[in-house]
Amino acid sequence: MQRDADFRKGFFTLPGEAGYEELTLQLAEKWGADAIRDSDGTKLSEKIVSSGYDIYSTICLVRMDNEWAKANRDKLQQTFLMSFPVIAKDSTVQIDPLKGYFREQFTINANEDSVSLWQVFDRTTGEEVPRSQWTFDAGSGIVTVNNVTKWHKYTVNFLAYRIWDEISMYNHITNDWGDKEHLMVIDPIYPEAQEHILSMLEKWLIEHPKTKIVRFTSMFYNFCWFWGDDPNLRHIFTDWASYDFAVSPYALKEFEKVKGYSLTSEDFVNKGLHNATHNVPSKRYLDWIDFVNQFVVSFGRKCIDLVHKYGKKAYVFYDDHWIGVEPYSERFKDFNFDGLIKCVFNAFEARLCAGVKDVAIHELRLHPYLFPTGLGGEPTFKEGGNPKRDAQNFWIKTRRALLRQPVDRIGLGGYLHLVQDFPDFVDYIEELAIEFRKLKSLHENGKPYTAPFKVAILTAWGKLRSWSCSGHMHEHPELELIRVIECLAGLPIDVEFINFEDIVNDRIPEGVKVIINAGRLDSAWSGGDNWKNPKVIEKLTDWVANGGGFIGVGEPSAAKHSSQYFQMSHVLGVDREIGLSICKAKYSYKVCCQGSEKHFIMKDFEGVPDFDKDIDNVFVLDGNTKVLADRDGSPVISVRDFEKGRAVYLSGYKVTPQNIRLLHRAIYWAAGCEDSYGIWTCDNYNTECAYFPESNKLVVVNNTEYEQHTAISGPDGKRAEVKLPPYGMEITDI
Amino acid sequence: MQRDADFRKGFFTLPGEAGYEELTLQLAEKWGADAIRDSDGTKLSEKIVSSGYDIYSTICLVRMDNEWAKANRDKLQQTFLMSFPVIAKDSTVQIDPLKGYFREQFTINANEDSVSLWQVFDRTTGEEVPRSQWTFDAGSGIVTVNNVTKWHKYTVNFLAYRIWDEISMYNHITNDWGDKEHLMVIDPIYPEAQEHILSMLEKWLIEHPKTKIVRFTSMFYNFCWFWGDDPNLRHIFTDWASYDFAVSPYALKEFEKVKGYSLTSEDFVNKGLHNATHNVPSKRYLDWIDFVNQFVVSFGRKCIDLVHKYGKKAYVFYDDHWIGVEPYSERFKDFNFDGLIKCVFNAFEARLCAGVKDVAIHELRLHPYLFPTGLGGEPTFKEGGNPKRDAQNFWIKTRRALLRQPVDRIGLGGYLHLVQDFPDFVDYIEELAIEFRKLKSLHENGKPYTAPFKVAILTAWGKLRSWSCSGHMHEHPELELIRVIECLAGLPIDVEFINFEDIVNDRIPEGVKVIINAGRLDSAWSGGDNWKNPKVIEKLTDWVANGGGFIGVGEPSAAKHSSQYFQMSHVLGVDREIGLSICKAKYSYKVCCQGSEKHFIMKDFEGVPDFDKDIDNVFVLDGNTKVLADRDGSPVISVRDFEKGRAVYLSGYKVTPQNIRLLHRAIYWAAGCEDSYGIWTCDNYNTECAYFPESNKLVVVNNTEYEQHTAISGPDGKRAEVKLPPYGMEITDI
Repeated sequence: MQRDADFRKGFFTLPGEAGYEELTLQLAEKWGADAIRDSDGTKLSEKIVSSGYDIYSTICLVRMDNEWAKANRDKLQQTFLMSFPVIAKDSTVQIDPLKGYFREQFTINANEDSVSLWQVFDRTTGEEVPRSQWTFDAGSGIVTVNNVTKWHKYTVNFLAYRIWDEISMYNHITNDWGDKEHLMVIDPIYPEAQEHILSMLEKWLIEHPKTKIVRFTSMFYNFCWFWGDDPNLRHIFTDWASYDFAVSPYALKEFEKVKGYSLTSEDFVNKGLHNATHNVPSKRYLDWIDFVNQFVVSFGRKCIDLVHKYGKKAYVFYDDHWIGVEPYSERFKDFNFDGLIKCVFNAFEARLCAGVKDVAIHELRLHPYLFPTGLGGEPTFKEGGNPKRDAQNFWIKTRRALLRQPVDRIGLGGYLHLVQDFPDFVDYIEELAIEFRKLKSLHENGKPYTAPFKVAILTAWGKLRSWSCSGHMHEHPELELIRVIECLAGLPIDVEFINFEDIVNDRIPEGVKVIINAGRLDSAWSGGDNWKNPKVIEKLTDWVANGGGFIGVGEPSAAKHSSQYFQMSHVLGVDREIGLSICKAKYSYKVCCQGSEKHFIMKDFEGVPDFDKDIDNVFVLDGNTKVLADRDGSPVISVRDFEKGRAVYLSGYKVTPQNIRLLHRAIYWAAGCEDSYGIWTCDNYNTECAYFPESNKLVVVNNTEYEQHTAISGPDGKRAEVKLPPYGMEITDI
Repeated sequence: MQRDADFRKGFFTLPGEAGYEELTLQLAEKWGADAIRDSDGTKLSEKIVSSGYDIYSTICLVRMDNEWAKANRDKLQQTFLMSFPVIAKDSTVQIDPLKGYFREQFTINANEDSVSLWQVFDRTTGEEVPRSQWTFDAGSGIVTVNNVTKWHKYTVNFLAYRIWDEISMYNHITNDWGDKEHLMVIDPIYPEAQEHILSMLEKWLIEHPKTKIVRFTSMFYNFCWFWGDDPNLRHIFTDWASYDFAVSPYALKEFEKVKGYSLTSEDFVNKGLHNATHNVPSKRYLDWIDFVNQFVVSFGRKCIDLVHKYGKKAYVFYDDHWIGVEPYSERFKDFNFDGLIKCVFNAFEARLCAGVKDVAIHELRLHPYLFPTGLGGEPTFKEGGNPKRDAQNFWIKTRRALLRQPVDRIGLGGYLHLVQDFPDFVDYIEELAIEFRKLKSLHENGKPYTAPFKVAILTAWGKLRSWSCSGHMHEHPELELIRVIECLAGLPIDVEFINFEDIVNDRIPEGVKVIINAGRLDSAWSGGDNWKNPKVIEKLTDWVANGGGFIGVGEPSAAKHSSQYFQMSHVLGVDREIGLSICKAKYSYKVCCQGSEKHFIMKDFEGVPDFDKDIDNVFVLDGNTKVLADRDGSPVISVRDFEKGRAVYLSGYKVTPQNIRLLHRAIYWAAGCEDSYGIWTCDNYNTECAYFPESNKLVVVNNTEYEQHTAISGPDGKRAEVKLPPYGMEITDI
C-alpha cells in the first residue's frame, strides 16, 4: 500500500510571482514543489529566489535585447508571404503586398537581395509572370504587373521582416499589456547576431547566480503564425511545425552552399498553401528542414555549453520557438539538453514529451495555465471559470499516457495570484501532484505489462512527427490520426512512427505486428502521392500477406491513381466511391457477425460506433469483406483476411471510452493475437489499468466523472476488483 | 370555362391485350384513347386491330429474328469488358476474363480480330503489360500473364459478344418468363445485317396492314448495361447514354477510316470507369459518339423511308436501344421520324421529350407501367400496391413541365388486365387524361407567360445532354444537377444547355441572363478539367462582369488547379476547404439579411433550407460575400456582387415546393430582375401556375396531396384567387 505522505514532495515546478511571496511559498509547500519558475509576464523576487527552491528562469535568446534588434533591423527574422490575390480588370494590375496582413507584425523587406527573390504569379493559371513584366516601387510599397490577362488573378511572393515576436504579441494582446514595448526577434543566422547572443547569454548567466535551470523558450525560430489586419481574419495561417520563420536571403545562400541548389520563394509560398505539416512534405522542403535543424543544433549547442560552463542545467520548452529543435531527430542528442518541457492538454502530448530520448528530464506543463482565459477565450481563472474541473478533465486525459510511459516532473505556468479565488483548484493540484508522484514511482522498477507486439503508425513524416499531428488536439480535432494517437497514447501497446521510406527500405521495426494508416486524401497523415509508388504497395502487401495486420482509418492509402482510390483496397477489401464510378453498382453486403456470433472486435460494443464525421460512400469489393457495422449503406467497420494477414477498415475515429476499447480490440485482431487479449485489461471500459510485474502492483484509473466499478484479471488466476471515485486512481498489490 | 365533356377524347395511347378484348375496348372508351398499342410481352388480337383505333406496333429490328442471329453469331452485338482484377501472388497470373460477369449475357469473342484488340493492364501502376507478356488460350478461355510483379493487380480488356438482349433479359427475369427463348441482338454495322433487317422490316410492314404507327424500340444499340453472375452484384454497370454496346472490330475499322486514327480497348474500358455520361467525355469518346450517331442516322433513315413507303408513320422510343439516336443532335432531323415517345417519371423527362425539334409528335409514356412491380421492385399492380397514388404522384411532377411546354400525346404501357383490380386507378386515368387535354389545348394559341430572360445550364456536354443527367432521377437522385433541372422543368423560365466550347467561342445564347453550374468535382455536370482552361475563366468572368448572373451549386467550377478549388471563386466569393489548407484561417462571416432586412432570395423562406447532403467546409473569401444561410459554419446560400453582375452559391439542392421557390427567386436576383419577379406567380409555393396571354387563361396546379389556396397577380391589377383540391388543377379566365 502506498501512503500519500510518501508522495507529498518533489518533481513539481511552481510558477512564482513577485509581490505574492507568501502565496508562492505557501503553495510551494502545499503542492510539494521543489522548483520555482518565472513565466512570460511574471518575475521572481529576491525573497523567492533565495527561498531554497531550485530556480527555473525562462530565457528567450532571440527577443531578449530589443535595443540591439532596433539597432540591427536588417538582422530581424523574416518570412515569405503571398499577397492576397488581386483580379486584373485591365492590362496592368497594382498589388500592395502587405494588404490584409497585420502591419504590426510585418513590414516589407525592400532590400535588393530580398526583392530579387520575389515572384509574381498568375494564380488563375498557376504560371509565374516573368520578372521583366513587374516592378516594385519601394517608396509606395506597390508592385505593378504589366501585360496581365484581364480577369486573371495575381499575387506577389515577397519577403517581410517580422517586427513583433509572435508569442509576445499573442500574450501582449490577450493580456492587454497596453503600451508595453513590442519585442522583436533577431535571427541568429548572422555571425554578428550569434556573437551578440552568446555574449548576452554569458552576461545573463553571470547575473543570475541563483538560477539552477535555464529554460529556453525555446531556441530561435517560432512556429509559423501569420496574423491579419481584419478582425474577421485575425489568424491567417498557423502551423505548429512549419519552417517559414527561419528564412532570409542569407540563410537561402547558406542553404545553396550546403545542398547544392537554391530554393525559390514559391518553395515556401507553395500556391498559398505554404508547407503545412498536414500536407505531404516535398523533398525540397525536407532539405530546408534539415538545413535549419542542422544550424539550430550547432548554434544551440554553443549556448548550452555556455549554460553548462556556469554550472547550470539547460532545459528546452517544446513549443513556441522550437522550430529546428526536432526532439525526434537524430541530431537532438547533439544539443546536450538536460531537460525538455512540454505543455500538455492530453495523452498524446504527454507521450510526445515522454518519448524523447537523449534528455534526462521530461517535464509536463499542465493545463489550465494560470491565466484568466483559456486558449479558446473561455473563462478559466475568472468569473464563470471552473479551473478545478478543467484541471481534472485535462489530467484524466494526460494520466492515461503516464500509465504507459513516465515523465519526470510536472508543473504549472502563469500568474500564481489568480488561484487565490479558487481554493478547490488549489486543493485539487495537491491531490493531482500526489497521484503523479505515485504513478511515477510505479515505473521505477520497470515497464508495465504491454502487448506482446508493437503497432506502427504510417505517415509521410514517420518518426520526425511522432505523437503529433502538428499542434494541439483542439486546433484540428477533425483529423482521424490525432484521434487515433490520442487513443493509443493510453493503451498498453508500444507504438512506433514510420514513413514510406521505412516501408520501401524494409525498415518496419522489429516486433511490429500492426500498421495503422489514418487520414484523408493528400494529407501527410494518409500519405498522399507516396501511395502511387508501387514499391510501397508491394512491400506493404507482402508484409500483410506474411501475417501482418493493416488498419485503415478514414481514407487510408487514398490517391487518385489508376483504377482504385484506396491503393490498399485489395488488402482492406473496401474502396470509396468519389463520384467517378457512380454507374458501377457496388457489391451488396449484409452487416454480419451480430448477436451470438459477435465479432471479437465488437465484443464490448452495442450498436454502431459514433466516429463524428464518417467517410461516406465506402463500398466492399466482394463477399470476402465482412462488414461489422455500417451507416447509410456505407461500412463503418469492416474486416478482411488477406493471405496470412488481416485488415480492418474504420470509416473514422473518435476518442470515447467505448471507442478506445474498440480500437484496442481491432489492433489485437489485426495482429492475430486475440488469444492474448484481455490480460490486465479492465472489464469496464470507462476505466483503464497498468500492471507492473516487477513490483506486482496494479494501478487502475477512472476516466470519467462518475464512480466506476471494474474487475481486472491477469494470468494465473490473478484478479482484482476496484471501485473508483469520479476521476479517481487506485493502486493495489496483486 | 372549359367543360370536361370537350376533353374526353383523343391524344391517348392505350396498351391493348389479346384475350382481354372487352376490357381493351371498354377502357379505350373510358380513357378516350384514339390509339391502341402492343407492348413487350403482349399482343393485339384481330378484334382489337380491327376496332377502328389507330394501331401502334412495337418493333425492335435488332432482336426480331433470333433464327438469323443464331445462324450469324459473328454478327451479334459486342462490348469491351474489363475482367475483375486478379492479384499476382507469383510471377505469373491467370485471368478468366468473364469471371464475375453474367454468362447468360456475355460470351468471349475469341476471334483473331477481337483478341488483337485486347489489352492487359497492371492496375496497381496503371501501365499496360506488353503484348509479348501474355497469351490467351481460347480452349480454356484463360489469359496467362507472365513476368508480373508480385502483389500487383492485373486486368484484361476483352471483347465479348452479347448473347441476350438486355431489355428482353430484364423483362424476362423480372416477369418470370421461364424457358422463353433468349433473344439476341444483331449488329447492323455489317452490310449483310443491314440487308437482312431491311428485308425483314419490309416483310413485317406488308404483314401488318392495320398498323398505322411503327414504334421503334428503339433503333439499334442499347444503353450500356453489364450484369454480374453474383446475385450480390447483379448490375455491374448501368448508364443510360454511354456508347459501349455499339463496338465491334468492324466498327473500329470503319471509325479509323472516318476519323483517321484508331481507338483502343482502353478508350472504352478507361481504367474500369468506362465512359459514364456523368464523367467528362474525352475528345476520343466524343468522336466515337459522333461516328455511331452518323451510322445510326444513316441506316435508320433507310428503315424509316421504308415505313413511309408503306404509308405508315415512324415513331421512336427515346429509351432502351436509343444509343446513336441523339434527339438533341443536329443530325436528328435526318431520320425523318414522325414521333418520339419517352417514358417519364417526372418533369425533366417530360421536357426532355417536349424539347426535341424536327419531329411532329411528342408522346409521353406515363408511369406506373401496368406491371406487377415498379422498377425498384416495389408492388404496383399487386397486393400492397396503390397505383392510383403512384399515378397521382408521377403526374403532379410531370404536369409541372406541361405548364411550360406541351407534348402531343400521352399513353400507358404494360399488361392491361392488371388494372382490373384497381378501379380507382381506372377512374383516375380518365381524370388525368382530361387534365392533359385541357393543358395541351391552352398551349394551342401561343406560349404562356415566361421570364423576360433565359437561363443556361453549363455542363461538359451542353446541348447534347439537354434535360438529362443520363437516366431517371431515381437512379442518381444525389446529383445536384438532376435536382436543379427538375426544378427548372416546371418554372416559367426558358432554359438552354451549353458547354465550355460555347463559353470559349462566345456562343452564350441570346437572352441568357443567368448561367448555372451544378455538380461535383470531375463530373461532366460541374465540368472537370474544362475549368483549367483560362479562356473559360476569362470569358465567363467577363460575361458576369458585364451584368450576367452566375449560380453555382455544390462544387461549381471545381478543379484541383493552381491556388483555388472553385475556379470561379473570385466571382462566387466562396471556395471550399478540401484539406490542403486547414492551417489557413477562414474569414469570419455572420449570416446576414435576416428579419426585416430579409434578402430577396429568402423572402418566402424561414430557417435554413434542407438540401439533403450539403457540400461542407465552404468558406467565404472576404466581407463582400453575404451569407444568407449556413450550417455547421459552412455557407448554404451566399450571394455576391461582381462588377455589374451577380453570383449566388448554393451548397446543394433538393426539390421541394419551398426550394423551387428559392431557386426561382435566386435566378431572378442573379439576373438583376427582381423588379419583374412575381408576375403570374402563386403566392402559395405549394401551387404553380401558367398564364396564357393570347387566350387570357390561367392554369393553376396543386403540387401537393392537401387542399391549397393561392392568389396570383398579373400586371395591370389582374388577379385571381383559387382553391384547389389535393393534386388538383384549375383553369380560369382572367
